[in-house]
Amino acid sequence: MTETRVEFRVSPDRYRHWKLSADGPVATLTMDVDEQGGLVPGYELKLNSYDLGVDIELYDAVQRLRFEHPEVRAVVITSGKPKIFCAGANIRMLAASPHGWKVNFCKFTNETRNGIEDATANSGQAYLAAVNGTASGGGYELALACEHIMLVDDRSSAVSLPELPLLGVLPGTGGLTRVSDKRHVRRDLADYFSTKSEGVSGKKAVQWRLVDEAVPRPRWDETVAERAAELAARSGRPQGAAGVALTPLAKERGDEAITYTYVSARLDREAGKVDISVKGPQDGPPAGIDGARRADFWPLAVTRELDDLILDLRTNETGLGTWVFRTEGDPAQVLAYDELLLASSGDWFANEVLHYLKRTLRRLDVTSRSLIAAVEPGSCFAGSLLELALAADRSFQLAGVFEDKDPDADPAIVTLGDINLGPLTMSNGLTRLQTRFWGDESGYEAAVKRKGEALEAEAAADLGLVTFAPDDIDWDDELRIATEERASFSPDALTGLEANYRFAGPETMETKIFGRLTAWQNWIFNRPNASGPDGALRRFGTGQRAVFDRKRV
Amino acid sequence: MTETRVEFRVSPDRYRHWKLSADGPVATLTMDVDEQGGLVPGYELKLNSYDLGVDIELYDAVQRLRFEHPEVRAVVITSGKPKIFCAGANIRMLAASPHGWKVNFCKFTNETRNGIEDATANSGQAYLAAVNGTASGGGYELALACEHIMLVDDRSSAVSLPELPLLGVLPGTGGLTRVSDKRHVRRDLADYFSTKSEGVSGKKAVQWRLVDEAVPRPRWDETVAERAAELAARSGRPQGAAGVALTPLAKERGDEAITYTYVSARLDREAGKVDISVKGPQDGPPAGIDGARRADFWPLAVTRELDDLILDLRTNETGLGTWVFRTEGDPAQVLAYDELLLASSGDWFANEVLHYLKRTLRRLDVTSRSLIAAVEPGSCFAGSLLELALAADRSFQLAGVFEDKDPDADPAIVTLGDINLGPLTMSNGLTRLQTRFWGDESGYEAAVKRKGEALEAEAAADLGLVTFAPDDIDWDDELRIATEERASFSPDALTGLEANYRFAGPETMETKIFGRLTAWQNWIFNRPNASGPDGALRRFGTGQRAVFDRKRV
Repeated sequence: MTETRVEFRVSPDRYRHWKLSADGPVATLTMDVDEQGGLVPGYELKLNSYDLGVDIELYDAVQRLRFEHPEVRAVVITSGKPKIFCAGANIRMLAASPHGWKVNFCKFTNETRNGIEDATANSGQAYLAAVNGTASGGGYELALACEHIMLVDDRSSAVSLPELPLLGVLPGTGGLTRVSDKRHVRRDLADYFSTKSEGVSGKKAVQWRLVDEAVPRPRWDETVAERAAELAARSGRPQGAAGVALTPLAKERGDEAITYTYVSARLDREAGKVDISVKGPQDGPPAGIDGARRADFWPLAVTRELDDLILDLRTNETGLGTWVFRTEGDPAQVLAYDELLLASSGDWFANEVLHYLKRTLRRLDVTSRSLIAAVEPGSCFAGSLLELALAADRSFQLAGVFEDKDPDADPAIVTLGDINLGPLTMSNGLTRLQTRFWGDESGYEAAVKRKGEALEAEAAADLGLVTFAPDDIDWDDELRIATEERASFSPDALTGLEANYRFAGPETMETKIFGRLTAWQNWIFNRPNASGPDGALRRFGTGQRAVFDRKRV
Repeated sequence: MTETRVEFRVSPDRYRHWKLSADGPVATLTMDVDEQGGLVPGYELKLNSYDLGVDIELYDAVQRLRFEHPEVRAVVITSGKPKIFCAGANIRMLAASPHGWKVNFCKFTNETRNGIEDATANSGQAYLAAVNGTASGGGYELALACEHIMLVDDRSSAVSLPELPLLGVLPGTGGLTRVSDKRHVRRDLADYFSTKSEGVSGKKAVQWRLVDEAVPRPRWDETVAERAAELAARSGRPQGAAGVALTPLAKERGDEAITYTYVSARLDREAGKVDISVKGPQDGPPAGIDGARRADFWPLAVTRELDDLILDLRTNETGLGTWVFRTEGDPAQVLAYDELLLASSGDWFANEVLHYLKRTLRRLDVTSRSLIAAVEPGSCFAGSLLELALAADRSFQLAGVFEDKDPDADPAIVTLGDINLGPLTMSNGLTRLQTRFWGDESGYEAAVKRKGEALEAEAAADLGLVTFAPDDIDWDDELRIATEERASFSPDALTGLEANYRFAGPETMETKIFGRLTAWQNWIFNRPNASGPDGALRRFGTGQRAVFDRKRV
């Protein structure tokens, strides 16, 4: 299934599965999946079931609503099919997919659901699930990501999580966590609900907190419009602002390289790594945020490129297990752009750019690749770009310069900015700097005191902002050994190690979804009881019952 | 490996691997593993490596120290072997074990480590790791469970977590979580440390927070004694109190039943379930806590029996996937015993009993079995025993009585007591009642208001204290269907479902260990890169390198 390279770039005129219509403050996203429109051959997307291709369109729509539609204050998600809202992820697709594909697919879907919640919480675009037919599995999980869930009360439409009884797996995209930690469904009712394949409908669904209201069909359209208007009325989106079109990315994709305007990646298949380079801005920022409202505004452009690169590499290049980040440019310019964004915090566009950067860095945090940052002379690991080094599992900063190459260069530096102290939180609710110094207040304070300073390698290492500060003589060897060593370890164990160490400190619904729930689901996906030849996932729809090894582990 | 039935009952006179010596306020637990003393044949326990048998003794020692040694205020854990503190779990044992055995073994080891921390935090028995030789893997994890870690500074002894580089798995018993969330080792240093099989020693280990101090050999004994005395001085343990001997349990173990004095279990292999019955006290409690200091004091006796039963069933009866709990006795008596314990909260023995009950119930929470409670006439689901119903995934309470059997019986009731409102917290730091009503303050308040009332089925169901309240006519069918249905589902998916729904709300180091870390480790254990014929765990020690599927998942 992964033979075909997957592209994440799409636009509304090319959607096959969704219709996006904006009508003043309320937009409607209508799911009407093209059965024949599967991303790869071998399955039909019946009953509004989805695959990665359907979710890529949804992700695009959610992004565009935020940037291109400042006027939209509420988004209704509904179905264009009669009687069915969404049947969840396509089972035949799942059953036929290799383990890694399933896991990556669920991760992306999770990120999009989180993005819906992020738009509701931080963008003044509240999502409303207008569940106008049965929502099962991933279909109900999509509704769970919305602020308000309305279920049509027609004696047949229900919400359900039938994964356990029908497929022998768990709901893979946050369902369990959102049922307990967001909807606050009592644990025993949640347990019962998740074992009942036909689900729960009507008043009982409301009583159990599975949905917010059950509405009879005759009053449906009117009530949906009413609720959407209510949600829209709570929004702080601007009046009369013009949107910023997310114009097509300039991307070149080959077997050995992926290049954009500011971001480029060299795929080193022999070493199993990717060398990623991120360029800082070429000029200073515009005088005010009004001059910035364009897709080629550096922070937006570089974030879009990074976002696309992460998705491309995660899905298409699973054999490249280590990503090495470098930057290139003027740190002062990076900080100047950061400052413009921070100074414009009341502005809807600046707000969107910051939250988009936040989400993209979070994508990096949950990426199952070893991340290394290499801070060299001429780099610009400052402010927002310093987050790449703080997101890395390990970072190296050259002490001094490359004597042979450029003895007169300025030495490599890193610089903390205000942007590192607040807006770019990780899924755990802390900044990367706070997470780094979790339980070490004085270490955190010492680092923050040096904000704005150009820190050379020794100072940065002493402060704990980088891991190692080798000199010219050791530099190449240390980096080579680090990446070679990484390539020699078990990829699975690395994934587990990184998933644990990257998230010190508190947990949130989001970290529970990526950490606890996902890890259990991955284990279950990988067990013969699900994916073996007689497993429930493989047997589904064949008329044969699954054969289970009944031993409890 | 699981052919032999494992017994968890042991006593110091039968220890093969540990020496427990108590010298006034400081006790010393010396690990000196008998190489030939493996629990099952097939491996030698070299270099103070351990298997389940070694850990069963450690668990016993930790328990006895709390009950039998009120005078002990600090416990030194050290090694009786030269140059090696502990090499961790035995690799050959792990490599040869089926998946379920590994997982269960890690769970028990985790619980014992948590028990060490619980003794330090709640019992005035602080643990000191006197690491007098190299501590690797589980050996270092044992040290991590201690309050203070001393490492001998001799240019050879180190602490390490070599699981990832050597075995392609993760440290399985809390290592990663304690390194980041307890020791506050910076994430990049933690990453580096966990990939370096030789570990870190001396001053660097202190600098990186991996240990608290590095002490040269000449000053070792004296410094250990000094630190132990300091820890002991902080304790609130009583002066001159006499210990309570944990006399042998009266246990009969057959193929179809396990019976103790108060607890009995019927193993229903056909239905894949265990019917567990817990008897309340036969008489009222003694007038004061002084009359209670005996192993046959009902709360202590019943807790010990439950504890042993949980461990026995978890290890030896993996095919029995559902446990159905019933109780039998006078609810008023149960509440009277609870009250004695709560009224004696300053007393060391009452404190120990409460914390032991807390730990035993936590064991239930992380047990990978479906838990069902059946509340019938004549039962005593009140106070401490109500926790069994609150720990259940689902509970049934008979509305009324069994008309055919005993029409004149009093109807089944449940009763909340003060003990449900505080001391018996789950791993997430909340009581089971708080977790049940997480996010539903008014539901919680409504239930608490009825404290002390004998609640019949409808009232209890309305309050949300039980799940279902079927009457006489439906009772048998509903219970049968629930257990049959449970037996028809994928055991793995049930384990994942329960592990998620049982822990709504906040996370702690303990829930992170059982939820996040364990789930990742289970996944990794189960992957071919670890456990396949060419996997790292299987290849270890053969001289052949592991062959990895390099695709990142």
